[in-house]
Amino acid sequence: MVRVDMKKLINEPGAVVDEMLDGMVAAYPEALARLDGTNVLVRADAPVEGKVGIVSGGGSGHEPTHAGYIGDGMLDGAAAGEVFTSPTADQLGEMIQACDAGEGVLCVVKNYEGDVMNFETGIELAEMESDVEVTYVVVDDDVAVEDSLYTSGRRGVCGTIFVHKAAGAKAAQGGDLAEVERVAQKVVDRVGTMGMALTSCTTPEKGEPTFDLPEDEIELGIGIHGEPGIERTEVMDADSVTEHLTERVLEDLELDAGARVATIVNGMGGTPQMELFVVNRRLQEILGERDIETWDAWVGDYMTSLDMAGCSITLLELDDELEELLSHPVETPALTVRDD
Amino acid sequence: MVRVDMKKLINEPGAVVDEMLDGMVAAYPEALARLDGTNVLVRADAPVEGKVGIVSGGGSGHEPTHAGYIGDGMLDGAAAGEVFTSPTADQLGEMIQACDAGEGVLCVVKNYEGDVMNFETGIELAEMESDVEVTYVVVDDDVAVEDSLYTSGRRGVCGTIFVHKAAGAKAAQGGDLAEVERVAQKVVDRVGTMGMALTSCTTPEKGEPTFDLPEDEIELGIGIHGEPGIERTEVMDADSVTEHLTERVLEDLELDAGARVATIVNGMGGTPQMELFVVNRRLQEILGERDIETWDAWVGDYMTSLDMAGCSITLLELDDELEELLSHPVETPALTVRDD
Repeated sequence: MVRVDMKKLINEPGAVVDEMLDGMVAAYPEALARLDGTNVLVRADAPVEGKVGIVSGGGSGHEPTHAGYIGDGMLDGAAAGEVFTSPTADQLGEMIQACDAGEGVLCVVKNYEGDVMNFETGIELAEMESDVEVTYVVVDDDVAVEDSLYTSGRRGVCGTIFVHKAAGAKAAQGGDLAEVERVAQKVVDRVGTMGMALTSCTTPEKGEPTFDLPEDEIELGIGIHGEPGIERTEVMDADSVTEHLTERVLEDLELDAGARVATIVNGMGGTPQMELFVVNRRLQEILGERDIETWDAWVGDYMTSLDMAGCSITLLELDDELEELLSHPVETPALTVRDD
Repeated sequence: MVRVDMKKLINEPGAVVDEMLDGMVAAYPEALARLDGTNVLVRADAPVEGKVGIVSGGGSGHEPTHAGYIGDGMLDGAAAGEVFTSPTADQLGEMIQACDAGEGVLCVVKNYEGDVMNFETGIELAEMESDVEVTYVVVDDDVAVEDSLYTSGRRGVCGTIFVHKAAGAKAAQGGDLAEVERVAQKVVDRVGTMGMALTSCTTPEKGEPTFDLPEDEIELGIGIHGEPGIERTEVMDADSVTEHLTERVLEDLELDAGARVATIVNGMGGTPQMELFVVNRRLQEILGERDIETWDAWVGDYMTSLDMAGCSITLLELDDELEELLSHPVETPALTVRDD
């Protein structure tokens, strides 16, 4: 037995990503496959004939992001870095090639310097080794801070899931690489997110809280790796937290009465669903008061930060095209949409 | 602004169930409806013509249990008590009547004294006020303890979800009340669960941990309300925890080589998915070593205990009928199964 010095269901801290990926494949053996010798999961039937490939990736610790979104109608592959660490360029290059059926590959990259750099190198490697056509979009939906610990410009957070969904649908419908990229960029241009933390997260390697947040304080604008936010305040009630986050996203997106949105109340990993629904209640009230129509509301853990307690709120301004793409059926471990 | 003295996304602690239910309906306005003046959610199209109704309920704090399983192919209604408190008999009676389309109603009850008593009274009330035919099954899948703080006999925990799924499918396929009840009881007879906690949970009313679990100890056999388990041990690694839980369930079910099972690795509310997949990896290895075939493996938060960190493992011994029923399409907030 491995000695574990923290309250986590893990074995060797350094093996947690490897074991998690095996555990995912063991849960979905017909849907997911692991590329030999890598931390890359792909659709078991990748590459899918006649379809643009869509891949993503990033540090681990954000589950179900990204591998949870692999499947019909969303991602073809997801590369897992170590916890809060970018995947290697080599593995990204391998993933890109494994997901190319000749129609090209779109990479969805969250805006962190390591991720962007490694994806750029991975794309170069893939292009050197094969004749794959590759393009990428960078998601930077976090409205809280410009430039942060790990980014120039804004961070990429939970809005990424809407990018996966819309681009994945377009690819499943037979869109070519340029169309799929256009749709992905359209979501990037119309989505905003802001998060907050009640508690820190604890990484398996370190075994103690990543940052210190006193018992009577919360942090607004926090990132998904415990990076600093914009403001520490005393503990607030759920309605006040919801108002703070929502107002900030609304301002950023400049949403006016009559707009139509899809929303996500996202749990950070340690937050019970009960609390997320309390937040959703106030979010939908606020939107109603402003005459903004919610076309679809997601509530749950979509992009987490290990065991951090807290939430984020994401708004995506819809148009007919995006609405149709979000409705397209999908079947993945973390998200299933049935045919109407 | 309400003063909040704990790190939870709530407003008034006494309003949390009410606000959560409103937040759920706000997330799924076309699928869910709240019975006026109650904490009961039902399918928006309840009662469903020509179909046996299936309802459940229990204390809140176990989300997505139970309202998360309302929808096509599963539950018609779910009654929410206050946190860790049984729903009232009055509201259970109202729910039963609201879900009866003339084909009768099956109640799925977890084995806690308050739940069983209030369901029995609720059934009597419904029968007095209408000519509804009602029957119920009691789920007691927790193999850890006979007789506990809140039960005579074993507790009902996460195996309940398989009861909802199988009975819901049978009802959707047009089974009559006796057939639906038979299928529900068949699952009850073939399912076992055992759980463990890394940390306590904290109720909104109390605002501090329900029980004391030292930094270097975990508890095996814990219930979903912080009731005592069977053993406190020092912190163990994930493989050891998985072996303890799985062995105990296997013994209880007397599963031999050649058996076919569906499995759930269930998070208790505060456990990251990363850790659940690490547990699933070892669970599937153990089953493989014993020549037990996993037909389907679920990993996620199905029946939680507020913000408790920990997990439970559920095994259901399948036969052809149960396999077919678990495959039946379903669309609910917490579980969606697409047509093949």
